[in-house]
Parts: sequence; C-alpha cells; structure tokens
Amino acid sequence: MSELSQHVKLLDSHSDQFWMRQAIAEAEKAIYRTRPNPAVGCVIVKDGVIVGRGATAPVGGPHAEVFAMREAGEQARGATAYVTLEPCAHYGRTPPCAKGLVEAGVAKVVIACADPNPLVAGKGVQILQDAGIEVITAVCTAEAEVQNKGFLKAMATGIPYVRLKVASSLDGRTAMASGESKWITGAEARQDVQHWRAISGAVITGIDTVLADDPQLNVRALPNIDLENIVQPKRIILDRQGRLPLTAQILQQPETVIVMGPFRQELADLGVVQLAVQSLKDLLATLKDLQIYDVLVEAGATLSTAFLQESLVDEMINYVAPTFLGQSARAMFNAEFESMAQQFRFKLIDVIQVGDDIRLRLIPSQESV
Amino acid sequence: MSELSQHVKLLDSHSDQFWMRQAIAEAEKAIYRTRPNPAVGCVIVKDGVIVGRGATAPVGGPHAEVFAMREAGEQARGATAYVTLEPCAHYGRTPPCAKGLVEAGVAKVVIACADPNPLVAGKGVQILQDAGIEVITAVCTAEAEVQNKGFLKAMATGIPYVRLKVASSLDGRTAMASGESKWITGAEARQDVQHWRAISGAVITGIDTVLADDPQLNVRALPNIDLENIVQPKRIILDRQGRLPLTAQILQQPETVIVMGPFRQELADLGVVQLAVQSLKDLLATLKDLQIYDVLVEAGATLSTAFLQESLVDEMINYVAPTFLGQSARAMFNAEFESMAQQFRFKLIDVIQVGDDIRLRLIPSQESV
Repeated sequence: MSELSQHVKLLDSHSDQFWMRQAIAEAEKAIYRTRPNPAVGCVIVKDGVIVGRGATAPVGGPHAEVFAMREAGEQARGATAYVTLEPCAHYGRTPPCAKGLVEAGVAKVVIACADPNPLVAGKGVQILQDAGIEVITAVCTAEAEVQNKGFLKAMATGIPYVRLKVASSLDGRTAMASGESKWITGAEARQDVQHWRAISGAVITGIDTVLADDPQLNVRALPNIDLENIVQPKRIILDRQGRLPLTAQILQQPETVIVMGPFRQELADLGVVQLAVQSLKDLLATLKDLQIYDVLVEAGATLSTAFLQESLVDEMINYVAPTFLGQSARAMFNAEFESMAQQFRFKLIDVIQVGDDIRLRLIPSQESV
Repeated sequence: MSELSQHVKLLDSHSDQFWMRQAIAEAEKAIYRTRPNPAVGCVIVKDGVIVGRGATAPVGGPHAEVFAMREAGEQARGATAYVTLEPCAHYGRTPPCAKGLVEAGVAKVVIACADPNPLVAGKGVQILQDAGIEVITAVCTAEAEVQNKGFLKAMATGIPYVRLKVASSLDGRTAMASGESKWITGAEARQDVQHWRAISGAVITGIDTVLADDPQLNVRALPNIDLENIVQPKRIILDRQGRLPLTAQILQQPETVIVMGPFRQELADLGVVQLAVQSLKDLLATLKDLQIYDVLVEAGATLSTAFLQESLVDEMINYVAPTFLGQSARAMFNAEFESMAQQFRFKLIDVIQVGDDIRLRLIPSQESV
C-alpha cells in the first residue's frame, strides 16, 4: 500500500466516525420521546456535506432514515447513510428502512449498533448488501449503545435494563431513625433524577415509599425540553398486601400506574394495570413484554436491597450528600455481612459534582475481593 | 483614560498574573522539602523574559528571592520580581529578602500572599516602598495560599491546619465487625495519601491504630520525587494510658515520634518527644510551637470523631471505595444523632476518581440545615 493510499484510508476512517457522531447527535434529540422505540439518528452525506438528517419520531411516526431520505431527496443517490442502529428489515408500524435505503439509491451504509434481536440481527444488512450497497458496521458502537441501553438489553435477553437510584449521606444513610429525611441531597441532584426518569419506561417503587412520601414519580422538569414532547414513565408499585390508598397522588394518572399485588376491583375500575407476578425477576420479564425496556428503581432500603441481592441491578446511580448522619440513621440497604467476601462490590463508571452533592454511577462487580 | 491606555493596563494586569503563575510553579517544586519554612517561589522578569528564578531551599538554605537574584545578577536592575509570599523583613536564618531586592535594584515587586503573621505583615512591603520600589499585592492569592495552608493558618491563628483522612465504603464503613479491612480502597488511593503525608509536619494517630495495624505512617513513595529530598512528617501517637509497645515499628525512627501520654523513661531514652498536654486543642497549639503547621489525622473512628466534634478539622480527605459493607461493619465515626440538625455537614471542595475509588475533599460546614 502506498503512503498516499494509507493516508486516504486513515482520512476515510476518521470520516466515518465523524459523521456517525453527527448521527448520534441526531438520536440524542429524540431520547425522551421515542419509547418504546429506540432513539435512532441518521445522516446522509454526499461529497462531504450532510444532505439529510433525521431522528426517530414518536411512536407510530417515521424512523430516522425516512426523515433523512426525505430531506436528501435525489441527493441520496450515491450518497452514504450513517445510522446509529441497523436499519429495520420488517414491516411493522412503518415499512422496512433497509428497503427504503435501497430505493433511495445510497451507495454505502455505515451502522453503529447491530439489531439487538439475535433472531433478526443482520437481516437489514443482508437486504442492503444484496442490493450491492457497501455496508460498514460497528462504527462508534459504544457511544451509540449508551442511547438505547434498555432496548438493546431487553431485545437481547428478555429483561429490561435496571437502574437503581439511591440518595444517601457519606455514611450511606437515607433518613434519620425518626424518618426525617428532607434535604439530604439538594435541588440539583433532584433535578438530575428527572433525566433518569425521563429515559425510563417505568419507575418502580414499594408501597412503603408510597405510604410514607406519597410521591408522583413522574417527570416534572427537564432543561430546555417541553414536557409535552416526552413519554412519561409508567409508575410501578410493589404492593403485595394491597395497601395502596385510592387517595394516593400517584393515582391521579391511574392509566400510567401498574400495581404488582393482589387483584383489586377498585384499581381495575380506575384503569390501573395489575400484575399477579410473584417475583422481581418475573416482574421484569413481564415489563419487557409490556415494551418497558428501561426501569428506574426509586425505593426504600428493603426493595433496593432485594434488587441487589437477586443480581437484577445493571447500574446504580448514587447521589451522595456531603454529610454524616450517624449510626442510628436509616441505612441505604438492609444487609449485614460477616466477611468482606459478602460485600456488595461495585465498579465505578463515573463521578460528577451535582450542585453541593456528588453523583456516582456504578455497576455491580462480579469480581471477588 | 484613553482607549489605548485602558488596553495597556489590561495587558499589564494580565501579565502580572501570568508571571505570578510562573512563580507559583517554582514554589510547587519545593512543597515537600522546605518545612517548617513555607514553600515560596520567585521569578524576576525583565523586558518580558524571566532572568532569574528560585524556590525556597531546605531549612537553613536561601529563600526563593536569593536564588532568583543570583541568577538574574545585573539584569535584576529595573526588573520586576514576582514572589508568592511577602519578602521577609527580619534577620532569621538568612538576611531579609526585602533588603536584598532593594539592593538588587528591582523597580517593581508583585506579591501573592501577605506575611501571615499579623504582627509583621506589611513590613516587607514597607521596606520596598521606602526604597521607592513599586509594590503590587494580592495577585493570584488563592492559588498561592493553597501551597502553604498550614503555615498561613498557624501564623495567623496559632493552630495548625488539620486534615482528617478517612478511607471508607459507600456506606461509611472502615472495616467489618471482625476488624477485617484489607483492600477497602485500592493501591492508587493509598498512593495518593502519600502526598498528604509528605506536605504535613506531622501525622496524628491513636494508640488503638498502632496496636491494631502497627503502621509506620511515613512517606514511602512519591511519583518522580527522590525521598532523600523531602522532610518526613513527625508521627504523633495519642496514648493516654502509656500502652505503646517498645517493639512498635513506628519506633524504628524514634527521633521522629511524639507521644501524648504519661511520661515513660524508656521512651525518653529512645529520644521520643513526650507531651503532657491534656486536650486535642492544647496538642495542636503545642505543635504550632514545635513548628508543625500541617497535621494529617489518620486514626480510628474514636479519635477522628473527637477531632470533628471539637471543630478542629479544617479539611476532610475521604477516599470512598465503591462497595457496601453492611450494617454490622464498623463506622467511620462514632456518633449517633437524633435529628438532622446534629449531622456532621460538609461542603464539597472537589471530587476525583483515584483508581477504582473516589476522593472527596470536604470542609466542615457551619451552615445549619
């Protein structure tokens, strides 16, 4: 290979990443509005210029590729399409995007993530290749995966991606023994939680939290986002003894509430979905069938501990307030260990300052210590 | 003022900060080696070029200004000297630097921090001004103060600057109930501790820690620093009942050990300094008289809690390992609070990732919640 052609190759490879990042930026605009569909971005590039761009519309509307192809029009012919997820190959709510790209006449398609469903993965690529289109895969995959963690995991495994949110003190406490707990973490941390709710298909809590705090667990504010354009998460209450009061604030939008517990006619009358599943694992599998792929657990110590003990947590989001609440305050998890081998060990993904508090993102670690 | 002269003034002011940062960088090279003297940096600038630079030598050696003047020689005449601390005005181990700058013929002196001793502050400036030298003060003060926190506080208040180091889990535990505590935080966090020891005049611990861990509490490694060139901290043991075994590893260098407890002839024979002070506050005041200005507390929960409860901590350095050790594990502090008004509240200075752990720097907050 000559030095010149090496150089050209490097430039070209740089370019694929550069344009894929533009497609990822398009997808980012859609992360709060596409559920249960994944947020996908697409740009169509001709002669070094973007001639069309798009992101997934709210459910029932067109996919990202359709918007990009519409904008590109005749310029799509011979162009390169960058798509953050493998174009679909099936007739669903919309016609298959892979066929659309063939008809539009693009010369090359670059893909970040393969279709996560192992049964259909590669079919979109096959349609494109059969039509003589050059296909390059796995460009900026990790960056694109972050945008659809739940969708990708749920399609691949049948279980949603579970985030566990905990707000605690430096000594892992969530409230005083009396229950006093106001202002452990500050307004900025509470605002940050809104993002994680807004990317979730459902927020899970326990009946004790509902009885103690009467929360709504919905999205109330996102910076620079009109709440009309987002899909609110379902609110799921674990209530094995059927104690949810009909006056609970969370029942003000009963159609978005799911209760796991004994059947109650008065909840059915309100339009609340009730699930008779017996375990957290079965609950998660059922949620996947309900097209809920990202789950945020915002619960008390008992339920949070159960999710951890059953190894159902993919990620813990821990807001830590710079305060020490003392040994009689309530612990974030209900667990006693005799030796370090039993500890709940995590791996740190990142840490940032959020107002006066910090936010840790952690993944449970399998590694024994 | 014309637009041009405004412009010139802005440029000039920018320059003072630019050159002061060079002086601060000089001082940084000396932070481990100058105790009990402060680490000071000096650059002499003529026609936009550094013609001399220097930092405080180990104790008994010249001050920063002397090195800078020596290098500058005749070029100091009419030049500007940037010094991170007000030049001294007294005959101590070395002649007064303010007089030296007058003799060298500098036209202007720029100073970051005033002399911290309220009784002599301003005397160096006075000598310079009396000689017709232009003096500008308070340039990059905050950045320069960081390099000599202990010296500045101790000179101003008579009490050293106290850092409390704690390594804990996400739930504020330091060991299992059994005492098992290996590897809560990782090697990088332990290495980071070496820096805080190396800038300290003394490390304070309790006899229980000595009996349990038999630590040395000295500096064993610093990146890119030859340990021959640093001043090792004294090691102070609080031992009210005289339990320190003569076989303790810490007594391998007995001349650097200070014990607070009942007088023991066998310790005196080894050369150990023994203090009969009765309270932590008296201990700190005595340490100041011993020219120990930065103190690092590396102790168990009882002693650490006492420092906090007596409001003697200026800064807490908390290494947090991403693990939950459970409710029967040992707490970082021994304190029980009934209401949130009693909490140990802190203000976050900064947070960084250190290996697999995080490091929080916190200052106790007076703010009621």
